[in-house]
Amino acid sequence: MPDIRKLLWPKSVAVVGASSDTRGLRGRIVQIMRSHPYAGALYPVSRSETEVQGLKAYKSVAELPPTDLAAMIIPAKFVPQELENCGKAGIKAAIILSSGFAEEKGEAGPALQRQVQAIAEKYDMAVSGPNGEGFANTAASLCPTFSPAMDAGDVPLLPPAERTRGQVAVISQSGGMGFAFFDHGRPKELSFRYIITTGNEACLTASDFAEFVVDEGKTAAILMLIEDIKNLATFERAAGKALRAGVPLIVNRLGASDAGARAIAAHTAARGNDSEYRALFKKYGVIESNDLDEMVDIAAAFVGMGARLPAGTRVAIASSSGGGGAWVADACALAGLEMPILDDAVRAKIDAYLPPYGTSQNPVDVTAQAIHERGYAEFARLAAESPNVDGVILVVTGRHPRFLLEDRDHLIALGRDSQKPVLIWSYTRPAAVCVELLSEAGLPLFTNVHNCARAMRVMADYRAARETIRKG
Amino acid sequence: MPDIRKLLWPKSVAVVGASSDTRGLRGRIVQIMRSHPYAGALYPVSRSETEVQGLKAYKSVAELPPTDLAAMIIPAKFVPQELENCGKAGIKAAIILSSGFAEEKGEAGPALQRQVQAIAEKYDMAVSGPNGEGFANTAASLCPTFSPAMDAGDVPLLPPAERTRGQVAVISQSGGMGFAFFDHGRPKELSFRYIITTGNEACLTASDFAEFVVDEGKTAAILMLIEDIKNLATFERAAGKALRAGVPLIVNRLGASDAGARAIAAHTAARGNDSEYRALFKKYGVIESNDLDEMVDIAAAFVGMGARLPAGTRVAIASSSGGGGAWVADACALAGLEMPILDDAVRAKIDAYLPPYGTSQNPVDVTAQAIHERGYAEFARLAAESPNVDGVILVVTGRHPRFLLEDRDHLIALGRDSQKPVLIWSYTRPAAVCVELLSEAGLPLFTNVHNCARAMRVMADYRAARETIRKG
Repeated sequence: MPDIRKLLWPKSVAVVGASSDTRGLRGRIVQIMRSHPYAGALYPVSRSETEVQGLKAYKSVAELPPTDLAAMIIPAKFVPQELENCGKAGIKAAIILSSGFAEEKGEAGPALQRQVQAIAEKYDMAVSGPNGEGFANTAASLCPTFSPAMDAGDVPLLPPAERTRGQVAVISQSGGMGFAFFDHGRPKELSFRYIITTGNEACLTASDFAEFVVDEGKTAAILMLIEDIKNLATFERAAGKALRAGVPLIVNRLGASDAGARAIAAHTAARGNDSEYRALFKKYGVIESNDLDEMVDIAAAFVGMGARLPAGTRVAIASSSGGGGAWVADACALAGLEMPILDDAVRAKIDAYLPPYGTSQNPVDVTAQAIHERGYAEFARLAAESPNVDGVILVVTGRHPRFLLEDRDHLIALGRDSQKPVLIWSYTRPAAVCVELLSEAGLPLFTNVHNCARAMRVMADYRAARETIRKG
Repeated sequence: MPDIRKLLWPKSVAVVGASSDTRGLRGRIVQIMRSHPYAGALYPVSRSETEVQGLKAYKSVAELPPTDLAAMIIPAKFVPQELENCGKAGIKAAIILSSGFAEEKGEAGPALQRQVQAIAEKYDMAVSGPNGEGFANTAASLCPTFSPAMDAGDVPLLPPAERTRGQVAVISQSGGMGFAFFDHGRPKELSFRYIITTGNEACLTASDFAEFVVDEGKTAAILMLIEDIKNLATFERAAGKALRAGVPLIVNRLGASDAGARAIAAHTAARGNDSEYRALFKKYGVIESNDLDEMVDIAAAFVGMGARLPAGTRVAIASSSGGGGAWVADACALAGLEMPILDDAVRAKIDAYLPPYGTSQNPVDVTAQAIHERGYAEFARLAAESPNVDGVILVVTGRHPRFLLEDRDHLIALGRDSQKPVLIWSYTRPAAVCVELLSEAGLPLFTNVHNCARAMRVMADYRAARETIRKG
């Protein structure tokens, strides 16, 4: 088995096919890599340029200083020879961003891909791709990819450590969609450890990377976008390790529809097998979702709640908006959650805070007035006390930050002390300071009500799956 | 029937219960109203203050100059007397933002609500509420509400006219959720004409307002959040007018679940009736959705496309990301759309632009390379040419605006000339300039793939419903 660590944690990277033209993909990859403070060496390899974006360029792979990783972005027909050169030069890892392999019509592309496989095996190289979009290792500030989502931009790659409960990894056959997870999750303060795109998976597969990530032990959840599973045994081993470690696999398998299947065959030469997948997913508590935002939100919920998963599917809802409470109740019912009336002791405590037009049943209609007087956190804390429920959904409006900010200490305490999961749905777009505050409190924040309800449900299912495998 | 125009288009507004304390709701309503350039007169009425936020305050309703609308935010027990005073003073419209009426436990609240009804009838006043959150009339810059979503903030109430194809109205029993539609839609450049919240609907109901909006003829789509329908005949009349006018009603009816039903009963004293509603909705092509973002996205699609609704459910997909193409194909299949292979003539034209690893079948995997060379619009234009499809979904990445901006003229032409609907899904969060450009082009932009597929589907269904009623 080749060493994935060489690929994801190289001390030096060569870009084979690097260019100064930053309008093209061969220039973009160098530009994006240099926009981050990667501490290792970066060596452009170019037949035509002696200097690439201010860096000394090497004429060939043979001339390179000792190098850990080659990022290859050259026409497909040249890839096998250059990969062979990498092997001879002692380079133990490569990512192939070029297209034109097994996904191409005709015989030439698949033949090239078989050559890549043979060379990787011969030199025991860790090879990802071809037809991938590279990866990002945020801790190393290493982004060998041309994905526009990885341009150093308005936000740093990682949220501050004090607002980070854990990290997620993305593993995706599709490059564009893989980095889209980061693009959607980062503004929600989700912390990404890796974004890994695997393309055609001629050598390393998504399952190999998943196993590496679980073994490494630094990732709280894994987001996977797969078009097919190249090796069911590897997937099963990775999924088993993940479940035992409590690292949820949140997976969308593309190609569920006929047209989708046609698309993935053309895209990464993938061939799905529905029934086999489904059995494996069930056995290992794999969480399936076909909505990118929902997947990101579910991952964030797991990261925020850690081991505090709901012991069952009974939730309390506390809402400052009566309509919002009804909406989340409908969403919870759709997600298969129950909303029992709270017990009398807890109701009495809540009623003491409410005006006569509020209600403590479930949903708790807290009313704007009681929020003005008591803040949000106290109602979630009280609802969680009820033995009738396994988790709490708190409905807030995060548009104007005053009420959440004034409730800061209680929210921090709630996130720290609650033994049951508390998820928060803001029915207005939350202000940035609210996102940061709730992130610091470790309270997962949702802007979509169905994602919130679904997250509570899959967390309960995941806990049950873990208990089953522990007993089994 | 009282005159709703007096309520929504008053030349002068009294705030009964106005306060200088902008931390409370009675101060917030005045503060929010004054943050917008409403051209009419604003009269605070206060028992205790002679001046409210720099405005002369009136001791009582009786002392007011001639006034069109009274916004009442005083304890429930005082509301009937003050409403009576309004009637005597010749004020023909009132919104009651106070709570503590039929939604309250016990007999006092419901009795107060019956008094409100009787007084409104006696003076033929247009009364909205009680337990509402007021409304907004953006054209008049009039926002008598304490909703934080209506604070004059970072964005103006309306997008520029040159980027506006039409406007939507929100009619919601829930105040918080009603204004949440605006909060979610405005950043997407959706233009809102009215946000109307109706609360307990003691007098005017959501159906009354819907009929007014359709009769007025200035609104392209109506977003409704209802907890119950107080008068089925009025709803049916409004829905019939709306369908004939081509103004889609996009409705979420809360209380579908047991807990949701419990919540709406406590919230606005609503009692749902599932089977009656469902039959009416079907007859009048009412579009049901229980997802706020989806509702907003569907409304935006109707506004952008106008009369160009899909003649059937067959779509072409063109994507720069192979994985993105597969994802949208799966979403379309879930939405009940078909994705037939494109015809040979169109395929030949597309193939001429594609590298060998692209595909013109359906989804069209355009590849990043072909987008670099030809831009996005040309592929949507060609796909729409195919007689095999009724609409096109174009998959883009709007994160870095370069490719969309460079394709500007073609996108504008596409939005102007296409006879079939073209919807756009950006799998990355689009840059603001991309949102503006596509808005100017009238091409609906989605960030959620399922909302995009669902919008195409309900547009096809809506066209079919209109054709049925035309024939019927």
